[in-house]
Amino acid sequence: MRNKQTLESILKINYPILQGAMANISDSSLVSAVSEAGGLGILASGNMKPEEVREEIRKTKSKTSYPFGVNIIISNKFCDQIIDVLHEEKVDIVITGNGDPGKFFPKFNAWNMKVIPVVSSYMMAKRMEKLGAIAVIAEGMEAGGHIGSITTMCLLPNITKDISIPVIAAGGIASGYSMMAAFNLGAQGVQIGTRFLLAKECNIHTNYKKRVIDSNDFDSVVIKNMINKPIRSLRNKLTNLIGRLELEYLKNRSTSIEDIDLKTINALSNAVKNGDVQNGLVMAGQISAVLTKEETCKEIMCSILNEWNSCTEKTYSKYDLPQVGNT
Amino acid sequence: MRNKQTLESILKINYPILQGAMANISDSSLVSAVSEAGGLGILASGNMKPEEVREEIRKTKSKTSYPFGVNIIISNKFCDQIIDVLHEEKVDIVITGNGDPGKFFPKFNAWNMKVIPVVSSYMMAKRMEKLGAIAVIAEGMEAGGHIGSITTMCLLPNITKDISIPVIAAGGIASGYSMMAAFNLGAQGVQIGTRFLLAKECNIHTNYKKRVIDSNDFDSVVIKNMINKPIRSLRNKLTNLIGRLELEYLKNRSTSIEDIDLKTINALSNAVKNGDVQNGLVMAGQISAVLTKEETCKEIMCSILNEWNSCTEKTYSKYDLPQVGNT
Repeated sequence: MRNKQTLESILKINYPILQGAMANISDSSLVSAVSEAGGLGILASGNMKPEEVREEIRKTKSKTSYPFGVNIIISNKFCDQIIDVLHEEKVDIVITGNGDPGKFFPKFNAWNMKVIPVVSSYMMAKRMEKLGAIAVIAEGMEAGGHIGSITTMCLLPNITKDISIPVIAAGGIASGYSMMAAFNLGAQGVQIGTRFLLAKECNIHTNYKKRVIDSNDFDSVVIKNMINKPIRSLRNKLTNLIGRLELEYLKNRSTSIEDIDLKTINALSNAVKNGDVQNGLVMAGQISAVLTKEETCKEIMCSILNEWNSCTEKTYSKYDLPQVGNT
Repeated sequence: MRNKQTLESILKINYPILQGAMANISDSSLVSAVSEAGGLGILASGNMKPEEVREEIRKTKSKTSYPFGVNIIISNKFCDQIIDVLHEEKVDIVITGNGDPGKFFPKFNAWNMKVIPVVSSYMMAKRMEKLGAIAVIAEGMEAGGHIGSITTMCLLPNITKDISIPVIAAGGIASGYSMMAAFNLGAQGVQIGTRFLLAKECNIHTNYKKRVIDSNDFDSVVIKNMINKPIRSLRNKLTNLIGRLELEYLKNRSTSIEDIDLKTINALSNAVKNGDVQNGLVMAGQISAVLTKEETCKEIMCSILNEWNSCTEKTYSKYDLPQVGNT
């Protein structure tokens, strides 16, 4: 039974398009621009401390009066306090990522927070619905950053067939065509990350944007797969190095998982802030291969909605069915 | 510039639905049933010898007068002779898989064969178009069996944006909804493998079908990833064993790639013929998680086309665009 309330009415937005939260990247500038353009901007609190999150929320509010959400990372040790900050600052749309948010639901529910967990499996989606999530983001393994193993094309129909809260598709979505594809698979909204890396309001280093624009479909690699902490990123010196370290870890433990982890954590900000796209980590989704240019958030939104509208105009022929049992 | 000729008219079929060729599985029984239902059945020649292929073609022709295709595996040492057999037996639709068919194109073109290569990257698709392929099957890594690394959601838009021959989507497609999704992304046809495993006319062991029906989204695993020959299959004793052997190979070469390969080749037929779904290899796509029952090919086709038709009836709202430059 599909919930009749649309995602737009639940979140008070014009278009069912969420900007994917990207740690170190989705700041007040990008978030406010997406919300101003009618989507839902999402602040990435990443590994911030509670007061840093409060500051970024206030900055965002100074730039837009439209709704926006905040992404919290379950593995952040300040997670509980950040939730308090969201409540105090009256941000009631919470996206959870990178872990199981189960233990926080009593608080979420007591404060009527609209919680939208990112899930990468059927089981997790069902569990989140039961706990009180108002929607889930079903994220396929083609997405950038930390990923699961199931693709958007397979994850979506499996979840949407059995769940009554809205399902938002993520992973591989960058156009109105793929948004329509996701809706045909039962989604009621989409989350778009990689394309917003190329927003003019996205304050990442110009080298990072150029690397995304220049990428082809072989450049999207998954690192740390061998140690079961997969991250999708663009191929460079660092991803090659990590591949070698993983092999060494498996072969003779001459390095440790902690050492490998350390290389990736600082590396993202190295690419984002310093523009070191060879030794830094250039997180991006596999769809980066189709992206070609920088645009404003409004231009991105218009382009996606124009493509969507062209899909609604296109009329596909119906088919007469083959006769069953006539052989 | 999109070719105006439809896939149906090129292949002389009623519906742009191809049955995925599955070695050891897609025999005259399944192939003729799919073609009788208005799709394109595809015989899998796998590692057969030329005269075995001839016999299976003749069997298929005795069961249907509709067109069907034959899949050839480039790594089969008899590949060249099998092409001669196809020409002699007047089968002019050739699907190529598991390798680069480049060297055979002079023959294909001289004999006016309709060649449709399975591709898993943009570069391969462009190359095949140039050589004279009449269409390509763009297969995402969610497909069963031998796979590439790019998902259907990302591979399709990247290829369809730049190619003028029809693109057939494969990997994760099992319903009319996903067929419509693929068309939204620019495909003009779909190839469906895993769902046809559950066709009543598919002569695999009942244990194999049951394993597919019982699978959930965590059961889909990729083996031989660590030795760069990835195969998607359903988790069992054998896939766990191969995972351990891969690790051993990486650690200390206490086993060889050839030994690992040997375990998978015989294992498929062990599952297909003997129903040993623990020690055999149960190749299936990730979409197996949504499949629930056995049906005839006509029932499968009707179900897909009904879902397709329901998509064409559904009218999505258009969106008014945000004003650009009004901040």
